[in-house]
Amino acid sequence: MRVLILGGDGYLGWPTAMYLSRRGHDVGVVDNLSKRFWEAETGVEPLVPIRPLQARVKRWADVTGKTIGLWIGDIAENHRFLYELLEEFHPDAVVHYAEQPSAPYSMVDRARCVATQKNNVIGTLNLMFALQHSCPNAHVVKLGTMGEYGTPGIDIEEGWLEVEHNGRKDRVLYPKKPGSFYHLSKVHDSHNLEFGCRIWGMRVTDLNQGVVYGIDTDETVLHPDLATSFHYDSIFGTVLNRFIVQAVSGVPLTVYGKGGQTRGFLNVRDTLRCVELAVLNPAASGEFRVFNQFTEQFSVMDLAERVRRAARSRGLRISIDHIANPRVELEEHYYNAKHTALVKLGLEPHLLTEEVIGHMLDMAERVKDRINPELNQPSIRWKAR
Amino acid sequence: MRVLILGGDGYLGWPTAMYLSRRGHDVGVVDNLSKRFWEAETGVEPLVPIRPLQARVKRWADVTGKTIGLWIGDIAENHRFLYELLEEFHPDAVVHYAEQPSAPYSMVDRARCVATQKNNVIGTLNLMFALQHSCPNAHVVKLGTMGEYGTPGIDIEEGWLEVEHNGRKDRVLYPKKPGSFYHLSKVHDSHNLEFGCRIWGMRVTDLNQGVVYGIDTDETVLHPDLATSFHYDSIFGTVLNRFIVQAVSGVPLTVYGKGGQTRGFLNVRDTLRCVELAVLNPAASGEFRVFNQFTEQFSVMDLAERVRRAARSRGLRISIDHIANPRVELEEHYYNAKHTALVKLGLEPHLLTEEVIGHMLDMAERVKDRINPELNQPSIRWKAR
Repeated sequence: MRVLILGGDGYLGWPTAMYLSRRGHDVGVVDNLSKRFWEAETGVEPLVPIRPLQARVKRWADVTGKTIGLWIGDIAENHRFLYELLEEFHPDAVVHYAEQPSAPYSMVDRARCVATQKNNVIGTLNLMFALQHSCPNAHVVKLGTMGEYGTPGIDIEEGWLEVEHNGRKDRVLYPKKPGSFYHLSKVHDSHNLEFGCRIWGMRVTDLNQGVVYGIDTDETVLHPDLATSFHYDSIFGTVLNRFIVQAVSGVPLTVYGKGGQTRGFLNVRDTLRCVELAVLNPAASGEFRVFNQFTEQFSVMDLAERVRRAARSRGLRISIDHIANPRVELEEHYYNAKHTALVKLGLEPHLLTEEVIGHMLDMAERVKDRINPELNQPSIRWKAR
Repeated sequence: MRVLILGGDGYLGWPTAMYLSRRGHDVGVVDNLSKRFWEAETGVEPLVPIRPLQARVKRWADVTGKTIGLWIGDIAENHRFLYELLEEFHPDAVVHYAEQPSAPYSMVDRARCVATQKNNVIGTLNLMFALQHSCPNAHVVKLGTMGEYGTPGIDIEEGWLEVEHNGRKDRVLYPKKPGSFYHLSKVHDSHNLEFGCRIWGMRVTDLNQGVVYGIDTDETVLHPDLATSFHYDSIFGTVLNRFIVQAVSGVPLTVYGKGGQTRGFLNVRDTLRCVELAVLNPAASGEFRVFNQFTEQFSVMDLAERVRRAARSRGLRISIDHIANPRVELEEHYYNAKHTALVKLGLEPHLLTEEVIGHMLDMAERVKDRINPELNQPSIRWKAR
C-alpha cells in the first residue's frame, strides 16, 4: 500500500516509516521539522543525537535498499504544499502524526497554546480538504490520545458510548474532558474528523493512544543513524522514559503529587504494530472508528516502583520523591479503559516486564554522559499565568 | 456593571449593547468589522442599511444621553489589542459574540472553514488568556449554539449529562454532534472554556442559543440609525427571517428537503433578556454553566405553515416549495431539548404568535424594494468540494 506519514521526523513517525517500509509498503514521510525548533526553543535535546531526516532516509536506503519518499513542508501553514503532495503521492492511507505533541508545551503561555491548537487543528482541516480534493477514498489513521477522555468516573469505551437517558437510547461520541490545551486540540480534531466522515464519507481511524515508552524498534537498531528521538525531559518526555533516565543518573524519581494518576501505556513497538493493523484494516467509507491504543494501565506510583525494582536488581539504589504537581489533575481516581479492538485485529502486546525495563536502563546507561537531570524537573505549571 | 460586548457591530451584539446601556450598565463594544467584509465578499446586504458602528454609537448618545465605549480591533489576530483593552475597560462581564456566525459560510471551501475555526477558536483562547492576565474574576457570557448538540436520539440537556454506565455514574459534558464547521468551532470553544473553568477557576456561562428571529427591539426603534443588521439571505439569514422576506416578495417559501428538521427558536428580544439574566446572575468561580437559550421548538415546515397563515390573513397567497437540501442533516428526527434554566432566572418568553409574524411581515413590506429574492436561494452545498 501507499502510506504517507505526516510528522515523519518524530519519535513515532520515523520508526513507523521504517517499519512499514520494511514490510513492503510504499512509504513517504512529510515533516515541517518544527519539533526540532521547539526542542531548541525550550533547550532540550533527545537522549541520543538524531541525524537530519534527509540523512536518515538516505541511511535507510543504504541499509535496506528501500526508498522512503521525503517532503519537507508545513501542512498547517501551507495548504498548497499538501494539495500538491497528495496529487503526487496519491496515498491509500495517511498516518497523521504531524501535531505538536506536548501537553506542557501547550501550557507555557498564550502563544504556545494558540500555536498548538492552530498547528494541530488547522493541519488536520487542511488534510481533510486536500484528501477530498484528490483522494477522497484514502484512509486517515489519526493519532489522538487517551488523554482526550480525561479521568471520568465511568468506564472509558473506544470512542463511542451507548447512552440510555429518560427511556431513550443513542450511540454518541464518548464525552471528553481533556487535561491540557494540547489534549484539547486532539478533541477538536476528533470532532472535525467525525463530521468529515458524516458529510463526505471519509474513512477515519482515530487512535487514542496511551503513553508510549521505549527507545528501540527492530529498525532503529539496524544502524545508529536510524535512532529515533527519545525524550526524557519534562516537556517532550513521557513518564516512564523520564524515570529510566533518572534511575541511571542516580537522582530520585520525581512523582507528581500522590502518583495515583492512572493512564494507559504501551511500548513503542506496539505503536508501530497498531498503526500497521489500522492501515491493513481500513475504516469503511463514512466510518469514524476509534481504537484505544494501549496495552496496560498503570498508576505513576506503579511505574516508579517497577523502575525501582528493576534498578535494584542491577545494583542501583533509587529513591522516589513526591513533588508538587505542576498539572491540574486528579491524583486518585477511577480508571478503567477498554482496549480490545486492536487485540481483535491481531495485536500481541509487548508488556512492561522487568526485562523490558532492564533493557531500557541498559540503553540509558550507555549514553549516560549526555543526560542533564535538570531537564527532568517540571518547569511549566498549569495554573501559572 | 461594566459589560464589554465583543462583536458589538453584529445582528445581536449591537441590540445587546443598547439594551444593557439603557438599563444603566457601563457598556463597551468591540468589533473588527469582519462581518461587513464577509457580506461584501458574498454579495449580500442587510435588509435595511446599517450605519457604521461609530455613527450608531454617536446616535445612541444623542438619543439617550448614554455613552457606549467603542474599540475597533481584532481579538483573534491581535491579542495585544485585547490585552490593552481589558486593562483599560476592566469589565465585570464580557459578552462574547465575536465569531463568524454562519454555518453555510464555513462550508464554502477550505479557506472559509479554516478562517471560521481560526477566528472563533483563537479569539476565544486569546480572551481566556487576556482575562487571566488582567481580570480573572470577570464573568464570560459566551454565545454558543443549540446546533452544537445536533439531533441526538435522546433528550438534550443543558450542557451536562448524568450518565450511568456499567453500574457507575458520572456527570459529563453533553456529547456533541454538530452539523457544520461553524457549529464545530463553537464545540471547540465550549471544550476550551470548560477547561479554563477547571484549571483557572474561570466563570463561564455558555449560551447554547437557538435560531433567532425578529428585527426590532425596544432600542432599535428609537431611531432609524439604530437598526440592527437583519439578514434574509441564505448565508447569514436565519430560516424564519428568510420566509418572511420570501412571503412579502411573492416567491415560494423554500423548505430544505422534507422540512421535518426541528430546532429551538427565540425572538431577538429574548436574546437580549437572556444575556442580561446571565450577566446579572454570574457563574461561580470555576463553574462552566450552560443554558439552552431558546423559547419554543419548531420544525421548518411548522414555520413555513405559520408564515403562510399569517400572510394569508393579510391577503398574500403563499406557496411552499420543497427544494433539494444543500445541507447534510436529518430531515425527520427526535428532538426534545431542555430549556428551563433561563426561565428559572426570570425569562418571560415572547412567543411566536401570528401577531409577531404579522409585525415582521409589515416591517419587511415597508422595505420591499431592497429585497433581492435570489439571495434566498441556497448557494453553498455541504457535499460539494
